[in-house]
Amino acid sequence: MSDSMEHFPHLEDLVRDADRAVIEEQTMRVVLKAEQHHQHVRDQLQQVVTLGDQGKRISLGDDGPVLEPGTPMHKGFVTGIKVALHMVGDFPLKVVHSSEDDD
Amino acid sequence: MSDSMEHFPHLEDLVRDADRAVIEEQTMRVVLKAEQHHQHVRDQLQQVVTLGDQGKRISLGDDGPVLEPGTPMHKGFVTGIKVALHMVGDFPLKVVHSSEDDD
Repeated sequence: MSDSMEHFPHLEDLVRDADRAVIEEQTMRVVLKAEQHHQHVRDQLQQVVTLGDQGKRISLGDDGPVLEPGTPMHKGFVTGIKVALHMVGDFPLKVVHSSEDDD
Repeated sequence: MSDSMEHFPHLEDLVRDADRAVIEEQTMRVVLKAEQHHQHVRDQLQQVVTLGDQGKRISLGDDGPVLEPGTPMHKGFVTGIKVALHMVGDFPLKVVHSSEDDD
């Protein structure tokens, strides 16, 4: 075994780091991308809810209808966004740094 | 080095598999969990849209208001859910099996 090991002088280091740095970095990268998307969706929905609760006019696209505050259409729309925000919920994974991880 | 290696008889195998099985399985597990949540949210929103487009009555919770089809409140609500579904969009990561991966 020591012969083959000569081709991998840092093999021990690799193994020691394999289930920390490498896995965590790759996993972290994709998980963070998914989490960012999730948060972006929440932010967008929250913006609409805030506008609605402030009684602001809401326009649905450049050529779309404008929802005037106080109308049932406006109220229904904002309620729909609130329900959607509730459904989207929290991101389903908890992202922790290894220093915080007790496992 | 060979002394310390005796404690790790399968070290070579570990290294060889480290950036395949372990990373992929762990990454896959967390990515799939996030993807399932995303799809579940989409399914829920789509169900409401389908109900609304079919002109069905929509009740907001057990004690909540009931939205009668044909009313502006009903229309606004379903429009809000449609906009939310559009915002939620597709899952931001493409999940492929290693056999399909050209990298």
